[in-house]
Amino acid sequence: MSTSNNTSLKSALAQACTEIESTIDTLLPMVPGDESVLLEAMRYAALGGGKRLRGFLAVEVASLFGADHQAALRVAASVEFLHAYSLVHDDLPSMDDDDLRRGRPSTHRQFDEAIAILAGDALQTRAFEVLVEPETSADATIRAELTLALARASGAAGMVGGQVIDIRGEGRALPLDQVRRLHALKTGALIRYAAEAGAILAGITDERRDAIVTYGLRLGTAFQVADDVLDATASAEELGKTAGKDEASGKSTYVSLLGIDGARAEARRLSDEAREALSSFGAQAEALRALADYVVERRS
Amino acid sequence: MSTSNNTSLKSALAQACTEIESTIDTLLPMVPGDESVLLEAMRYAALGGGKRLRGFLAVEVASLFGADHQAALRVAASVEFLHAYSLVHDDLPSMDDDDLRRGRPSTHRQFDEAIAILAGDALQTRAFEVLVEPETSADATIRAELTLALARASGAAGMVGGQVIDIRGEGRALPLDQVRRLHALKTGALIRYAAEAGAILAGITDERRDAIVTYGLRLGTAFQVADDVLDATASAEELGKTAGKDEASGKSTYVSLLGIDGARAEARRLSDEAREALSSFGAQAEALRALADYVVERRS
Repeated sequence: MSTSNNTSLKSALAQACTEIESTIDTLLPMVPGDESVLLEAMRYAALGGGKRLRGFLAVEVASLFGADHQAALRVAASVEFLHAYSLVHDDLPSMDDDDLRRGRPSTHRQFDEAIAILAGDALQTRAFEVLVEPETSADATIRAELTLALARASGAAGMVGGQVIDIRGEGRALPLDQVRRLHALKTGALIRYAAEAGAILAGITDERRDAIVTYGLRLGTAFQVADDVLDATASAEELGKTAGKDEASGKSTYVSLLGIDGARAEARRLSDEAREALSSFGAQAEALRALADYVVERRS
Repeated sequence: MSTSNNTSLKSALAQACTEIESTIDTLLPMVPGDESVLLEAMRYAALGGGKRLRGFLAVEVASLFGADHQAALRVAASVEFLHAYSLVHDDLPSMDDDDLRRGRPSTHRQFDEAIAILAGDALQTRAFEVLVEPETSADATIRAELTLALARASGAAGMVGGQVIDIRGEGRALPLDQVRRLHALKTGALIRYAAEAGAILAGITDERRDAIVTYGLRLGTAFQVADDVLDATASAEELGKTAGKDEASGKSTYVSLLGIDGARAEARRLSDEAREALSSFGAQAEALRALADYVVERRS
């Protein structure tokens, strides 16, 4: 990636991060009463960290197609709520049992297990609520389509289904095609959704939307392959979460199946395919192209 | 309640139960692969038990206003998915730690904790997905409104918020107004939603919808007061779940605050108010009136 693209992507990511944080802050107001701890936990899980890859994707694609920016920030906040809920539940003792997330105690360590489960539950609900509120779009058809696409990406046939395959795969060897399917569901479906959501919000229904979907699919897979490489090579300090977990849990990963060099080559190939999917777009898609490089070159 | 009303309500409830079970069965098809255990757990939690009070309410109100019956059954299945998710998570070891539900092992006892958490998560997602699918209504505005109302009833400002107040209230005395608020959120919001959803589906926006909302609110509170009485007086065998839990956990309840006779009188008063809210409706609302009696006279 050229240095100038890298610099402009970093600045675009930083600006989107700030705006998404601020939108999340507004959409999760504190409340008085005994339930205030729930909002505290939801804010703890959703604010103050993360690369906002999914939110950025939604905002960038929406911008590419000229959708309203405030509406795009709501869609970005919604997908980040959904992602945050999945991390809170994945970290629970009965799941990955992880004490560290984004360099801080995971939500059940900072609060307790019951509050973490309920905060995850309420973050999922809030993701759908924010999408379907009239403030997201005056057009109910678009709101309904966004909501349906998020449900399909995140439910039993998407993210949660992938998490189940992941749990069941611990301690036994999965072939490459099953690892691909696992990640297409667990991580890929929500990243693909984030990209497509920007197009849905803008009312795009032609082949440009197909191109964005292909981009999102390749980007999501590239991201996960790179994640496996990072898990095997980076330190916990760099990652802000426990490192070396995959090998410790006996999971089949792209690294265990392809080796580190093979996985790096696979990530690069997928990143190139993501770029190619954007060939019909002009200079306005440059940040999305740079993002395809970023996800495979990042160190955390 | 007259014997004939009782008999016709029981027959209407039984028929709705059968149709709702069948709809749920269709909406949760089994899948092959490693994720099949997730669908098994979702089906275990959502099928084969329960009074289907919420689903019945949605179906009866939809029928009162002439909405499409198949669409009403989808709305009923959706609210039952949401309810089932809340029960699965409430029963978890870090929450109420309950081994028994509807006379069978609770979901985390039948499967394991991770699968129970994920099955609850995916049931919540499925509740929103089913509502917002075009099969529920050709009118996207109605689908969006149903979805938003469910999110508001079930999230941090509704059911989950109430569950947090409930957990935080264990072992200390809450005054009556806080117990009322707790139950208005934890149980009442979803029962009110179930009633209102039937009106939303039928496109009713006038004072008839307000009447149904008032009915739903009173019915929901009556139901909870009666639940407290049952917890204090019925056996586990009758309830199909652990009895005497409230006193054991030191929770403030309508019974601890009003005594058993006082709580019974309160339930009766609320049931009468629910009936009165239906005074402008004719004979077609008779099942809903009988339901107001049923919720306070039931033995399980």
